[in-house]
Amino acid sequence: PIAFDPADPTERRLAFLMEADRLKEIERAGRVAGGRRENSAEHSWHLALYALALGSEAAEGASVDRVIRMLLIHDLVEIDAGDTPFHGEKRADLDAIEDAAAARIFGLLPAAEAGEMLALWREFEAAETPDARFAKALDRMQPVMLNLATGGGTWPDFRVSEQQVLDRCGPPIARGAPGLWPRIRDRIRAYFAARGA
Amino acid sequence: PIAFDPADPTERRLAFLMEADRLKEIERAGRVAGGRRENSAEHSWHLALYALALGSEAAEGASVDRVIRMLLIHDLVEIDAGDTPFHGEKRADLDAIEDAAAARIFGLLPAAEAGEMLALWREFEAAETPDARFAKALDRMQPVMLNLATGGGTWPDFRVSEQQVLDRCGPPIARGAPGLWPRIRDRIRAYFAARGA
Ligand SMILES: [Ca+2]
Repeated sequence: PIAFDPADPTERRLAFLMEADRLKEIERAGRVAGGRRENSAEHSWHLALYALALGSEAAEGASVDRVIRMLLIHDLVEIDAGDTPFHGEKRADLDAIEDAAAARIFGLLPAAEAGEMLALWREFEAAETPDARFAKALDRMQPVMLNLATGGGTWPDFRVSEQQVLDRCGPPIARGAPGLWPRIRDRIRAYFAARGA
Repeated sequence: PIAFDPADPTERRLAFLMEADRLKEIERAGRVAGGRRENSAEHSWHLALYALALGSEAAEGASVDRVIRMLLIHDLVEIDAGDTPFHGEKRADLDAIEDAAAARIFGLLPAAEAGEMLALWREFEAAETPDARFAKALDRMQPVMLNLATGGGTWPDFRVSEQQVLDRCGPPIARGAPGLWPRIRDRIRAYFAARGA
């Protein structure tokens, strides 16, 4: 382990970046196309690339670069809180645990930068601005694409029905990326139709 | 596997994003702090986060958001070409293989977007603009930090000396992020001093 001097701003940034490495150990419920479980660091990379490639699908007023920044940091709280599968149960104290995680992890940075990242993460969580809505839409959509590419992925694992998938994924995707939802919806329908479920 | 209609621009973007998933299967020589080998997708995420957190260390004229975009795509050619360890041998035809990979992978996108990404990747490879120099500095620095955090990491694996590490990592880091190099250099020296090598 490397020691960092908390009195020096750049040392604080390096300490934050070393702590962030631990996101690579956070396993998600879903699988990459290669078959193994995805981790939250590579998921965050994939989402940032989604924003870069699909920026033209964002609603008016969204800034692709700001969405990319948001997606790069959106899952860091999982270092302390772990991943909460989208179709799984959410523990009652999750919000409190994630708030404490955000304070600890972003708090490794110099105070002004910690405040900026914390605000960006809270904006993502609230999903009310055009940037956050687009980011949330991509965060809902990318696991669907991986499920479609891996024979259903987490859907059979969590025994979710076609209607549950449509009801849970549709609103956030349609809200943040309206042009993308019909393409995803039709593929979800085709998957369940082929499965005869 | 999902089918995408190559005549539709958004379908092309989705095909590119699905292909990009394969970067998660590309194993690097270095290890994450948790001990297993790092893959190129999570490495790309970590580098983008480095740019976000260390942007104030970039030389005058660099754009942090552009550097982040560059780092998100900089390793995609490895899907075809594999990772080339920094301290390992570089095969003679690597440039040709990576050029062909870039043409194929970015070519999945609509033509104008493919051209933009290809230009951004070439700019990174050339390492001449302030953005590319900062990106390269981070790409050299992050594996050093992981080596320092994992008892030397790839240095004992490749039997490199202190002087080789300083000679190979110093120039690109000092050129793109001059304020960061002394911090890295001193830690490299301390590592080898403690090892008595
Ligand atoms: Ca790299």
